[in-house]
Amino acid sequence: MWLRASCELMFDIAVPCPFILMLRPRSGAQQWISLEEYRLQPSVPVSEFTDDYGNLCQRLMAPPGTFSIHTTAEVMTADQLDEAPGAPFIEVQNLPESVLVYLLPSRFCECDRFGDMALDITRGCLLGYDQVKTIENWLRDHISYQPGTSTVPVSAIEVNQRQFGVCRDLAHLGIALCRALSIPARMVVGYLHGLEPMDLHAWFEAFVGGRWYAFDATQSGIKAGYISIGYGRDAADVAIYTQFGPSVLPTQQTISVQRL
Amino acid sequence: MWLRASCELMFDIAVPCPFILMLRPRSGAQQWISLEEYRLQPSVPVSEFTDDYGNLCQRLMAPPGTFSIHTTAEVMTADQLDEAPGAPFIEVQNLPESVLVYLLPSRFCECDRFGDMALDITRGCLLGYDQVKTIENWLRDHISYQPGTSTVPVSAIEVNQRQFGVCRDLAHLGIALCRALSIPARMVVGYLHGLEPMDLHAWFEAFVGGRWYAFDATQSGIKAGYISIGYGRDAADVAIYTQFGPSVLPTQQTISVQRL
Amino acid sequence: MWLRASCELMFDIAVPCPFILMLRPRSGAQQWISLEEYRLQPSVPVSEFTDDYGNLCQRLMAPPGTFSIHTTAEVMTADQLDEAPGAPFIEVQNLPESVLVYLLPSRFCECDRFGDMALDITRGCLLGYDQVKTIENWLRDHISYQPGTSTVPVSAIEVNQRQFGVCRDLAHLGIALCRALSIPARMVVGYLHGLEPMDLHAWFEAFVGGRWYAFDATQSGIKAGYISIGYGRDAADVAIYTQFGPSVLPTQQTISVQRL
Amino acid sequence: MWLRASCELMFDIAVPCPFILMLRPRSGAQQWISLEEYRLQPSVPVSEFTDDYGNLCQRLMAPPGTFSIHTTAEVMTADQLDEAPGAPFIEVQNLPESVLVYLLPSRFCECDRFGDMALDITRGCLLGYDQVKTIENWLRDHISYQPGTSTVPVSAIEVNQRQFGVCRDLAHLGIALCRALSIPARMVVGYLHGLEPMDLHAWFEAFVGGRWYAFDATQSGIKAGYISIGYGRDAADVAIYTQFGPSVLPTQQTISVQRL
Repeated sequence: MWLRASCELMFDIAVPCPFILMLRPRSGAQQWISLEEYRLQPSVPVSEFTDDYGNLCQRLMAPPGTFSIHTTAEVMTADQLDEAPGAPFIEVQNLPESVLVYLLPSRFCECDRFGDMALDITRGCLLGYDQVKTIENWLRDHISYQPGTSTVPVSAIEVNQRQFGVCRDLAHLGIALCRALSIPARMVVGYLHGLEPMDLHAWFEAFVGGRWYAFDATQSGIKAGYISIGYGRDAADVAIYTQFGPSVLPTQQTISVQRL
Repeated sequence: MWLRASCELMFDIAVPCPFILMLRPRSGAQQWISLEEYRLQPSVPVSEFTDDYGNLCQRLMAPPGTFSIHTTAEVMTADQLDEAPGAPFIEVQNLPESVLVYLLPSRFCECDRFGDMALDITRGCLLGYDQVKTIENWLRDHISYQPGTSTVPVSAIEVNQRQFGVCRDLAHLGIALCRALSIPARMVVGYLHGLEPMDLHAWFEAFVGGRWYAFDATQSGIKAGYISIGYGRDAADVAIYTQFGPSVLPTQQTISVQRL
Repeated sequence: MWLRASCELMFDIAVPCPFILMLRPRSGAQQWISLEEYRLQPSVPVSEFTDDYGNLCQRLMAPPGTFSIHTTAEVMTADQLDEAPGAPFIEVQNLPESVLVYLLPSRFCECDRFGDMALDITRGCLLGYDQVKTIENWLRDHISYQPGTSTVPVSAIEVNQRQFGVCRDLAHLGIALCRALSIPARMVVGYLHGLEPMDLHAWFEAFVGGRWYAFDATQSGIKAGYISIGYGRDAADVAIYTQFGPSVLPTQQTISVQRL
Repeated sequence: MWLRASCELMFDIAVPCPFILMLRPRSGAQQWISLEEYRLQPSVPVSEFTDDYGNLCQRLMAPPGTFSIHTTAEVMTADQLDEAPGAPFIEVQNLPESVLVYLLPSRFCECDRFGDMALDITRGCLLGYDQVKTIENWLRDHISYQPGTSTVPVSAIEVNQRQFGVCRDLAHLGIALCRALSIPARMVVGYLHGLEPMDLHAWFEAFVGGRWYAFDATQSGIKAGYISIGYGRDAADVAIYTQFGPSVLPTQQTISVQRL
């Protein structure tokens, strides 16, 4: 499936303001980026780097006035998210080094507090993929998906208490539950074709059976059209923009994903 | 100052248990490791890797029975921790890439919630080193240092509420406050000569004036004798041992640091 | 200066053939990539990775038949290559770790054999930038630039013997001479606006005065319009395509660089 | 097999001289370092870093006068080098990313010039391990191993011409031949118990059947007692010491390897 995704951010900057951005999707396991565009208005110097999770990040100083960022990508993405019922749990000693970091607790995924709950939810499951699928289903049944209800990220503990949340919140709780079972899990932010209302999206991936699989408790019908932009331990690592100094919110944020 | 530090951990293992250890200090800015010893009893295969923070980690399966780890290091460490009153704050856009990760919130350092408090504490300070020194002093005055009072790590928010803690707790709050001011800050675990009671220790470092400086709110008289073992965002990254599966606690943990 | 550069490669593949490609320019010190396009015909799965030098590489299996790769980039590049007469030599102990690898001899830059010659050429120069500039001038005077005269890369020793070469050859000799003086030097491949005849181009960079500066002994008038695609120790690291198995040459290779 | 290996280097330094050293073995696939000692006389500041190949390197300025380095390691090493006749060739597209660099030509291993010769030598072999074993045997039969005959490294082309060489030379030619067959191959320097005359040693590893295997054309009887210190593309990457400025040779170099 070929998709064209774009994200336009517009800010009203009072004083020069440092930004770290993460807006450039990269080709990966289930997607191929054939065109990628990134326009800044006004044009300013940008320093690009790859972070510890492999994301391409941009550092820049936004100048006072209206500052806009427009990105577009043309992406071939999988026709169907891979599924693998029965894919086995991988013992810690056999995991690739690069995934070990995704076993640790992180800002919004306090897996060190979810041991009993994760065992309860997945009792009787085959270890591995089936545990994660059960967690995804549990999230869908128990945490009400309410787009637009949170502005600042809250953590898995808080999500579990309030029992509702945005896509990011459901992903955080899913990740915390997986890690509590020694299953590496990570956050993904990106685009989703057909998402209602259209916005940037977040879901999670778990490492079972020797590779990463995607899970999204916010959707039941949609099984395709995902474009990954960034990976991280949780939302702290994969903010589309991290802005320093006095808080600046976008005056406009426009997302679109179209089928080509 | 030449020091000889050692750490002995003894476990009683019921079922084979995967461990990730972080016990090998490495030469660095203010220390030189001239001898380093690492004995396992019984001897088992170990796979060593360097994590994202540059720490040398060991992965192994502890076999059932008594399992002990004995490490020793001979280290030349600085006669005096470096201090630098007046060292300036470095703007985000001028920070080295490798320190950017230490600006983000992490499991036990929810800096995204400490903006106002950090500004309050450091009001009137010269930006940079002096802000961090003021935070260190504030911690010493407001958070009671009580060794041995906590077994599982708690986060900066919790520490700030209960107003007492172990070395790790004071470090977490210090780090959260620094990051809230856009000052990169990281956790250090290691040894401290003269620590009472003797144990592994934790403190924090902040990046100001173009380099890392150490801060330790738990001590007022001691200014030297620090040996770093591991660095990370917070205690989640620098656990001396991370153990997976049913919890196993050391039956014995013996630390010693002697002057040579 | 805004440029639009494109590279089209066409191959006639007999048996399935693994390729590693390096065709995606990245934003960097003196360039900003605002649009980047990469089309394969037929479409095949691609696995992308970042190599040790920071280059974005693509791994794929070219299927039998006509296989074409078309890439385009829109780039803002410096109006003038930076120059810095007098920029000092940096002592080895003060170099950033990341540039140390560029002091070592490599496949096509046998700097271990050029010590005396490098000293001869640069006798009397201020250490640092001026040495490299003198080397660049020496190359322009002594090694005849003859585009199209070589198909397989030859090494600095061979270039120095035959006294002529393509852009890559002059760069190799320049790099070998710099490294022989303990000045880190690296190969760059990329595009050059106004190059005659139009083709992919190669030049070199030397690390003096705390940063990389570009040098190009093949040009005297042109001082701008450079777009970097890849960096490496020498041509072995920055092949636009590395192909494995029985040799396959492009049936067509079209390069264009236009001012926008 | 437990071994105690040590290396003592002594230099007579005229003017302050920057060194990069690589003398600390690390635990790995077939070895475990239980004790590691590193003494400098006189004591000077050392900056340690990990290079692109995972080697722990030390950077320091040797002061004028006698300068000595003494390292010791206690190592458990395999009782028998692993062998795997029949282990298959891994197609380029299926190799782990981290081994791709070992397919490229390097300073002393001009694999780009050995395609026909490598095919000739291995004609009829099963692809993979058996090809490498055949190359090892061919080296043993055709290149006379003559310890002490070379001071500066020469390249595979030169070794192939002169038909004799030190351990490093045989390894270089072996590596070049493997890479010419698209088999990743790398240089190892280290210790060998029982080596006659005792010295530092070099051999090579090839990646077949999904992992690295060691090959040493200089030995026929010895199958154990290997301790790896450093890995790299060739001798340029794994010099035990790289010294910058006017050449300084060790006035004394003492190696010993004893069984514990």
